[in-house]
Amino acid sequence: MSSTNTQVRLAAHPIGLPKDSDWSIVEEPAPTPGEGEFVVEISHLSLDPAMRGWMNPGASYIDPVEIGAVMRAGAVGAVTESRHPSFAVGEHVTGAFGVQEHALSDGRGVSKIDPSLAPLPTYLGALGITGMTAYFGLLDTGKLKTGDTVLVSGAAGAVGSVAGQIAKIKDCRVIGIAGGEEKCAWLTDELGFDAAIDYKHEDLRSALREHAPDGIDVYFDNVGGDILDAALTRLARGARIVICGAVSQYNATEGVKGPANYLALLVARASMTGMVVFDFATRYGEAARELSGWLRDGSLISREDVIDGGVRDFPKALLRLFAGENIGKLVLRIDTA
Amino acid sequence: MSSTNTQVRLAAHPIGLPKDSDWSIVEEPAPTPGEGEFVVEISHLSLDPAMRGWMNPGASYIDPVEIGAVMRAGAVGAVTESRHPSFAVGEHVTGAFGVQEHALSDGRGVSKIDPSLAPLPTYLGALGITGMTAYFGLLDTGKLKTGDTVLVSGAAGAVGSVAGQIAKIKDCRVIGIAGGEEKCAWLTDELGFDAAIDYKHEDLRSALREHAPDGIDVYFDNVGGDILDAALTRLARGARIVICGAVSQYNATEGVKGPANYLALLVARASMTGMVVFDFATRYGEAARELSGWLRDGSLISREDVIDGGVRDFPKALLRLFAGENIGKLVLRIDTA
Repeated sequence: MSSTNTQVRLAAHPIGLPKDSDWSIVEEPAPTPGEGEFVVEISHLSLDPAMRGWMNPGASYIDPVEIGAVMRAGAVGAVTESRHPSFAVGEHVTGAFGVQEHALSDGRGVSKIDPSLAPLPTYLGALGITGMTAYFGLLDTGKLKTGDTVLVSGAAGAVGSVAGQIAKIKDCRVIGIAGGEEKCAWLTDELGFDAAIDYKHEDLRSALREHAPDGIDVYFDNVGGDILDAALTRLARGARIVICGAVSQYNATEGVKGPANYLALLVARASMTGMVVFDFATRYGEAARELSGWLRDGSLISREDVIDGGVRDFPKALLRLFAGENIGKLVLRIDTA
Repeated sequence: MSSTNTQVRLAAHPIGLPKDSDWSIVEEPAPTPGEGEFVVEISHLSLDPAMRGWMNPGASYIDPVEIGAVMRAGAVGAVTESRHPSFAVGEHVTGAFGVQEHALSDGRGVSKIDPSLAPLPTYLGALGITGMTAYFGLLDTGKLKTGDTVLVSGAAGAVGSVAGQIAKIKDCRVIGIAGGEEKCAWLTDELGFDAAIDYKHEDLRSALREHAPDGIDVYFDNVGGDILDAALTRLARGARIVICGAVSQYNATEGVKGPANYLALLVARASMTGMVVFDFATRYGEAARELSGWLRDGSLISREDVIDGGVRDFPKALLRLFAGENIGKLVLRIDTA
């Protein structure tokens, strides 16, 4: 194991897309555990659109990453040194270890994972926060019912692809919105979505009319912007819109575009509700059991788009998310050898 | 009783504020009841911001008023001729009789009212659709709880003034937003609101910070636009926004302004839900009993802003609503003598 710890720290609050100068790459000595602590060697880092929000100053649903702090990130890794009674060397764990090679932990917020049950990156995908977000967003916030017509944006992304599959498992009609032919083909041909709309090459409103002739009961929104506005035009009576994210707006430099069609909520007696997965933390076990059952029986596919590299590749990898280049969960594999 | 029936009919779908040329004034013979019908001589017409939406073409929560049709309006009046077993001459009734002097009815959607219990205009105010909207919007859609901090926009208007008073009756802290000193003084001095913000002369965001230091639990929105955006910045965790109307946007000629701060819903795990009072029609009796109890014991004040005139004054009276000139419920008293 290396004796240095490479870290990516936030150097400046970005304006628009994060630039190289918004980051600093730091090498410091690898940490040593004190009493009740252990060290994790990180093997995989999670890349999430929400990260962009964490980089902004000011209050949000989670404290912002301070300038000079290690960038917050979910990760999986293995315990390499331990003075903690519950975590032994060699065990695999997941937690918010940050963008670095080695993390010091006291075990709070850390879960053990079993690499014999699922590949490690899946613990950042369908079995990680990604899967929890889709599960609770759709079933709790979205109040999904059998037979609903469900629309998912960012449907080929990490959360969207799981959300759409859960809706299929629950016997719903599922329409995904994604950018490009390859993503759309994946949704219908491999994940079993009833329809996929390529928003880059199709007229979204007429495609929604075609695929949701009776309207949308649940709209799981990961993107915001024009796609949210189009979805609002097709709500069924009593529809539920789950605001999970708004990736189209996170790097906006001229202010967020609000949904001009929001009065459709009144016409349809519909609701639009924000969700933050951390609120469901006490119920992650319930979701993980159900999600792993579906993974095992093949009704749920967790696809991870794994980039091989090192911690230094994080800034570039993050930009792939905002360019919409990933299919499934974007993961950076860290080679610390 | 006059033998002609003056009516206001829709001549054109307005663009922006309704103009004289969007209306036609028609005189036709007063109607005669057939078997199972009766005639109502209208004494009071309700003026509602929602009327502007009914004048637009296209599907909404209610059919649009067709070109050439009598303008839809709630009204009260007295039965002057009857061949209906349940409605006798001299009885007072309320219903959607339209902007005309005499209406023919088969009794569907018509309720009898008792002028000895409350003045006739109150049956268009706190005891009418106005009161029902405030009651169900706040208690059902808004899921009001004792102790909530409640913000009401259009607070000196018909629905807003009732909604705020119901919230006070339910032991909430109530902040009203209205335009001008007179309206604000009425809210705090006569209706017992805890605070009133004059959006025309105060900085709304700093006033909200001052009056809702712990955030807003329920926002009852009648106006939309910039005020909705400001309210979104002050939501408490789990807040409920009731979208009752958007009077600031109804005459917009350049598209509705969507709430740019809608991602506050995510940060606050809040919801924004549209409501249409007609969905609660089977429960109007329940609301009317409670509202009339509050009127009787003085905990609720129904204020009507009554214009004296005739049916021909309707177009001008409607513009007063959009100019924000009324305090309380705007009613046009029809002198058919």
